[in-house]
Amino acid sequence: MRTETFVLNEARSVTLTSYLQPVGGEFGALTKRPAVLIIPGGGYHFCSDREAEPVAYAYLKAGYHAFILRYSLNEKAEWPNPLCDYEQAMGMIRANAKSWHVASDRIAVIGFSAGGHLAACAATMSKERPNAAILGYPVIDGDCAGDYLPSAPDVIAAVDEFTCPCFVFATRTDNLVPVGNSIHLIDALCRHDVAFESHIYSNGPHGLTTGDDSLGVQDCCSRYPHWVDDSITWLKDMLGGFDSNGLTAPRFGAIINGNHEEKLNLNCTVAYLRSQSAAAELLSHLIPEKQEGMSLPKSAEKVISLGQILAWGGADENTIRAIEAQLMSMQKEVN
Amino acid sequence: MRTETFVLNEARSVTLTSYLQPVGGEFGALTKRPAVLIIPGGGYHFCSDREAEPVAYAYLKAGYHAFILRYSLNEKAEWPNPLCDYEQAMGMIRANAKSWHVASDRIAVIGFSAGGHLAACAATMSKERPNAAILGYPVIDGDCAGDYLPSAPDVIAAVDEFTCPCFVFATRTDNLVPVGNSIHLIDALCRHDVAFESHIYSNGPHGLTTGDDSLGVQDCCSRYPHWVDDSITWLKDMLGGFDSNGLTAPRFGAIINGNHEEKLNLNCTVAYLRSQSAAAELLSHLIPEKQEGMSLPKSAEKVISLGQILAWGGADENTIRAIEAQLMSMQKEVN
Amino acid sequence: MRTETFVLNEARSVTLTSYLQPVGGEFGALTKRPAVLIIPGGGYHFCSDREAEPVAYAYLKAGYHAFILRYSLNEKAEWPNPLCDYEQAMGMIRANAKSWHVASDRIAVIGFSAGGHLAACAATMSKERPNAAILGYPVIDGDCAGDYLPSAPDVIAAVDEFTCPCFVFATRTDNLVPVGNSIHLIDALCRHDVAFESHIYSNGPHGLTTGDDSLGVQDCCSRYPHWVDDSITWLKDMLGGFDSNGLTAPRFGAIINGNHEEKLNLNCTVAYLRSQSAAAELLSHLIPEKQEGMSLPKSAEKVISLGQILAWGGADENTIRAIEAQLMSMQKEVN
Amino acid sequence: MRTETFVLNEARSVTLTSYLQPVGGEFGALTKRPAVLIIPGGGYHFCSDREAEPVAYAYLKAGYHAFILRYSLNEKAEWPNPLCDYEQAMGMIRANAKSWHVASDRIAVIGFSAGGHLAACAATMSKERPNAAILGYPVIDGDCAGDYLPSAPDVIAAVDEFTCPCFVFATRTDNLVPVGNSIHLIDALCRHDVAFESHIYSNGPHGLTTGDDSLGVQDCCSRYPHWVDDSITWLKDMLGGFDSNGLTAPRFGAIINGNHEEKLNLNCTVAYLRSQSAAAELLSHLIPEKQEGMSLPKSAEKVISLGQILAWGGADENTIRAIEAQLMSMQKEVN
Repeated sequence: MRTETFVLNEARSVTLTSYLQPVGGEFGALTKRPAVLIIPGGGYHFCSDREAEPVAYAYLKAGYHAFILRYSLNEKAEWPNPLCDYEQAMGMIRANAKSWHVASDRIAVIGFSAGGHLAACAATMSKERPNAAILGYPVIDGDCAGDYLPSAPDVIAAVDEFTCPCFVFATRTDNLVPVGNSIHLIDALCRHDVAFESHIYSNGPHGLTTGDDSLGVQDCCSRYPHWVDDSITWLKDMLGGFDSNGLTAPRFGAIINGNHEEKLNLNCTVAYLRSQSAAAELLSHLIPEKQEGMSLPKSAEKVISLGQILAWGGADENTIRAIEAQLMSMQKEVN
Repeated sequence: MRTETFVLNEARSVTLTSYLQPVGGEFGALTKRPAVLIIPGGGYHFCSDREAEPVAYAYLKAGYHAFILRYSLNEKAEWPNPLCDYEQAMGMIRANAKSWHVASDRIAVIGFSAGGHLAACAATMSKERPNAAILGYPVIDGDCAGDYLPSAPDVIAAVDEFTCPCFVFATRTDNLVPVGNSIHLIDALCRHDVAFESHIYSNGPHGLTTGDDSLGVQDCCSRYPHWVDDSITWLKDMLGGFDSNGLTAPRFGAIINGNHEEKLNLNCTVAYLRSQSAAAELLSHLIPEKQEGMSLPKSAEKVISLGQILAWGGADENTIRAIEAQLMSMQKEVN
Repeated sequence: MRTETFVLNEARSVTLTSYLQPVGGEFGALTKRPAVLIIPGGGYHFCSDREAEPVAYAYLKAGYHAFILRYSLNEKAEWPNPLCDYEQAMGMIRANAKSWHVASDRIAVIGFSAGGHLAACAATMSKERPNAAILGYPVIDGDCAGDYLPSAPDVIAAVDEFTCPCFVFATRTDNLVPVGNSIHLIDALCRHDVAFESHIYSNGPHGLTTGDDSLGVQDCCSRYPHWVDDSITWLKDMLGGFDSNGLTAPRFGAIINGNHEEKLNLNCTVAYLRSQSAAAELLSHLIPEKQEGMSLPKSAEKVISLGQILAWGGADENTIRAIEAQLMSMQKEVN
Repeated sequence: MRTETFVLNEARSVTLTSYLQPVGGEFGALTKRPAVLIIPGGGYHFCSDREAEPVAYAYLKAGYHAFILRYSLNEKAEWPNPLCDYEQAMGMIRANAKSWHVASDRIAVIGFSAGGHLAACAATMSKERPNAAILGYPVIDGDCAGDYLPSAPDVIAAVDEFTCPCFVFATRTDNLVPVGNSIHLIDALCRHDVAFESHIYSNGPHGLTTGDDSLGVQDCCSRYPHWVDDSITWLKDMLGGFDSNGLTAPRFGAIINGNHEEKLNLNCTVAYLRSQSAAAELLSHLIPEKQEGMSLPKSAEKVISLGQILAWGGADENTIRAIEAQLMSMQKEVN
C-alpha cells in the first residue's frame, strides 16, 4: 500500500490522503481497482478520525483503493467551499486514474453525518459526480444542515434522476441528527427513480462509524455493524465486483426503469407509458385498464414495466420485438 | 410440537393454525414462550403458503410459538372483516395463554404484502394490539390498499404514539407494491415517536418471503434474506429474549422518549420541554438557546433528552434528581 | 406440513416422525425435496428433545423434509439394534420416496452425541447409507462408545472410501464427550479420501444442539451457532441445492480424487499414479521426480492430481486427452 | 496510521513493517492496543503479498495494530534463521510496546502455509512466545516442512502444554499442503491440553488467504471467508477485546483445565486427580468409580473437572472450599 497526503488547499487546510493498493503481479488479472472516497463527519467543525481510517480498512480489505478527504471547516467552510474541496479531490483522483490504477467509473463516496451532507451534495449537485454514494446518518434537510453551517444547502431539493445510487443507513434513536433526515432522503430518491438501499437500525446514538467495539461504541443494536459488509456487496451489485479475471459487470446496476431514457422502451413503467399519448393508445389494447377477471392494480402500474407484463403474459419473442420497435419510434412527450 | 387448526369463522373460511412448542423439562427454565402470529399475503384474494409455514420455521427454531392466520378473502373480506379475524385470533391466543404457555405480552404479528396491510392495521387500529409488528413489503397507502380491497383503510392516517414497535422491510425494486408504501410508513412512525427498524434492500421483485432459494426466489440481492435473523434479534431487543433462566428483559424496549408519559420527565426531548411553558423557563437557565461557543443545534433538540444533556454536562446525581422532581411537579400542557 | 409418527418397532419403542413439506403449486418447480433424518443424542439412555425438533426447524426452513428417529435405548439397545432401527427408518423413507416427494439420493443423516455415534455408524457400516452425514459432538471411539453402550462398535475402524461426506462439529472444551472423538474421525476421513468439513469451536460444554439461547445454552462461544447455516450450505455443495427451476446439481460433490475409480484417470493424485507401475513410467517423463529448478514437493504429490499439473503446465487439449486415454487403458494394480 | 518498515537483517533481507493506529483522543479510553504479527507464506521461497496487507486490513479495522514480517528465504533460510527473524521481530515489538502503545501480552501471530510453519514454530519453540497463533493451511509435519526447507523442524514434536492457544484453518481439498498437517496439529494440541479452535472447510485450493474475491480466489466454498471474522472474535475470547472503557478481560482465556497448575485444584480433570494417589483416595469417596445407577463414564472423566462435578451435585460452598483446600495441600506427583 502506498499512503500519501496531498494538500489540496493550503489556506483552507484541505487535504486528500490516498491508500493505493498494488495491481498486477500476485494480484492476478487486476489492472485497476475501484475506489472509495471517504468524507468524515464532525459538524463542519472538525473531521473525525473515527470516521476516516477505520472505514478505509474495510474497503481496502475488500480490494478497493481508499481516499480520505479532509475539507474546509468552520469559518473556512462558507458554501460552496466544501463542495469545491470534494470536486477538487474527485477531479484529482480521476485525473490520476491511469497512474494510480483507479477504475474511474467505479468510485463511491462515503460520508458520515456532516460528511454525509457533503457526500449527498456530491451525489446531487456536483460537477464531478461519484458513481455511488454511501451515506451514514447523514445531515440532509436544509434546516438541519443550517444548524451546523448556515450556508449549507438542503439536499432534498437537489435530488433528481441524475442522482447516483445511494446506500443510506442510520439509527432510529440518533440523538443528534434526527433520523428524519435519512427518511426524507430515501423518499426523494424513491420519487425520482433513483436506485438505493437503506438500513435504519432500531437503536444506537449518533456517530457509531463502523460499529466496531474498538471505537468506543455503546448502546448499539447488534445489527448496526452489518452496514459495512452490506455496503460492499451493494457496491458490487451497482458498479461491479471482482473475479479471477479482474473486474466484473454489475449484477443489477443503477437503472430502476426505462422512463428516463431518450426513447420509449420496454423497461418503461406501464403508468409512464399510459402518460404518453401514443404509447397509451398501444397499451389500451395490450393491457386494458378495465377487464374481466383480475386486472393490474393502478398502484402496480407505477412500478411494473411493460416488458415484465409481456413476459408474464407469455408473449413470443417476435411480438415483443415488434412492440419494442413501435415504442422506439414514438415521439416522447415532455410531461 | 403440537399442531392444530382452529376454525375461527366457518362462513368466511377463517382459520388459525397453532404450532406449539413444549416448555419445562428438557427446555430448562422456560415456563412460557413468546409467540408470532403470521399473516400471509395474497392481495386479499388468497393466502400464500409461501409466506406461511416457511416463515414459521424460522421463529420456531428461535424458540417462539407460531400461529398462522388465514383470514377473510375476496367478497368475504369487506372491511373490517379481516381485522375482526385478526382480533379473534389474537384474542384466542391471549385467552389460551396460560394453557398454551404463551407469554401474552410478547406476541408479534408478522405480515406480508396484503397480510402486511392487515398486520399494520392490527398494529395501529385493533382492539387487540400486538406487542410488535414485522411487516414485509406491506401494502400501507390507502390507494394501494384500495386496489386490492376497495374497503381497506389507509394505514398512515392511523399511526399514532400507541402504535407498537415495527420492523419494516421491502425491496426498492418491488414491481407490484411500490416501495413508497414502506417509506410512508416509517416516515409516519418517525413523526409519532414510534420505535422501528427498517431495511429496504436494493433489488428484488415482490413476494420474496424468507428469501430461501427453495421458495423459487430470483433476482434477489444477497442482503435480502438477512431480514429473518435480524427481525429475531430485533424482537429480542424490543420484547426480551431467552437465557438459561428463562425469559429476559428487553435490551432496548419500545420507548423512544419520555414525551408521551403522563408527567414531564428527564427522558423528554429538549424541544418538547421547550414547548411546555414551565419547563421552558427551567431550560432557559439549564440550556440557554443562544450561548457563547458551540450551542446545541435546534435540530438536535428534537431528538436529545434533557437527561442525556445533563449526563454529558457531568451534572451530579443530586442536581439531576432535583431537576427531575421539578419536572414531575409541573402541569403538562396539551399542545 | 404433514406431521406423522410411525411406530417402527413397538417392542423396542422405536418411532419415526415425519415432517413433510408440500411440492408443486405455489412451490414452483419443486416436484421432490431433499431430506434430513435427525438422530438425537442421550447416551443411548434417552432421546433428547433438545436435539430433535429445534434442529428440524432449521432444515424445514431451508426447504428440506425432516424426519426424527427415536431408536432403541438402554437394555433394548444391544448392538446392532440401533443400527437396525436406522436402517428400517432410512429404508422406509426411500421406499416411500415417490409418494412423499423425497429425492432419495439427497438424504442426510444428522446425529448428536450418542446419536452422532449412530449416524456415524450409518455412514460407515449400514446397508442403507445416507448420502451425507452431519455429526455434532459425536461419540466415535470404541472405548467412549462402550462407556454408554458396551456393545457399541468403534467407528474409526469402519471408515473407508465408501463412507459418505461428513460435516463434523464439536467444542474443544466438551466436558462429557472428549473432542478427540471428532479429531480421530476427521483424521480417518482424511486418510481414506472421504470428503468432509469440520468445525471445532473453542468453547462450549456438551449438548449445545443448535446453540439457540432458547435451549438454555450457556458458556458457548459466539461462533458455535454458525454450524447450522454452514451445514446447510455444505449440504448444497455436496448434494445440490435449489433454484427457481427445482433441484440443482452439486457445486463440488463428494469425490476428493480419482484414486478409487475403476480405471486410472486424470483426477488420480500424482502419488497414487507413481504407485502404479505403468503409470509411474508415464509420469517419470511427464513430471520427473528430480529436475532442475523447483520440483513438485513429495507431500504435494499426495494431494494434487495429474490433471491439475497438466493444466498448470499449459498442456494442450490433445495432449491431455492422449494422456487420459493412456491411463484408461492401463491395468490397475491392487496396492 | 503510521506505516514504517524496519530492516531487521540486511544480509538476509529481513524486514518488519508496522501499521500503528492512534490511541487516546478520539479513540476514547484506549491507551494501548493489541496487535497481530503477520507472517506470509511462499514455501520459504518468497513472501506472498496476497497474505500480507490484505490480512492486516481486517485486523486494523477491528482495532489491532498490525505488523508484517518478511523473513529469510531460500539459501538464507537455513534453520533457525527464520525463527530468529521472528524472535527479533517480536522482541522489537515488545521492546517498543510503550512508545508504540502495544498491549505486549496481547500479540497474536498469524501465519499462512510456510508462514504458518514459522508461526507454529513461534508458538511452540521460540523464546519470544506469541500470546495466540492463527494458522492458515499451515505446513506442520516434518516431512512436509522438509519439502520446502530441508532444515525446517517438525512442529508436532514440539507441542506441549506451554503452546499458546491456536486457531487453525484449512481446506480439505488443499492441493499443495495436505490437510493432514492441520489435523495432526489439532490432534497434538488436544493431547497436550492446549486451547484451540479449528475450521476445515470442505472445498478450496491452496493459498486462499482472506477469501476475498479481489484476491483472485476460485473454487472456494462459501464458508471459507468466515475464518477472518471468526479469528477476531476468537482472539477476543482468548486475550480480551474492547469496550468503551478500553481493553476488556478475556471471556474464556487459554486455560483448558487445572492439570498443569503448580498445585492440585478444582479445575483438574477427574481422571488427572485419580492419577494422583492422594487425590485418588479423596475421589474414591466423592465419586465412586462403580456405583448404583448411572456413573460417570470413564471417557468423561478425562475432560470434566472435579469442580464441575461438585457444582452439578449441588455441593454447598463450604464443602467445595474444604475440598479445594485439601487438594491444594496435597503433594503433586510427577506422572
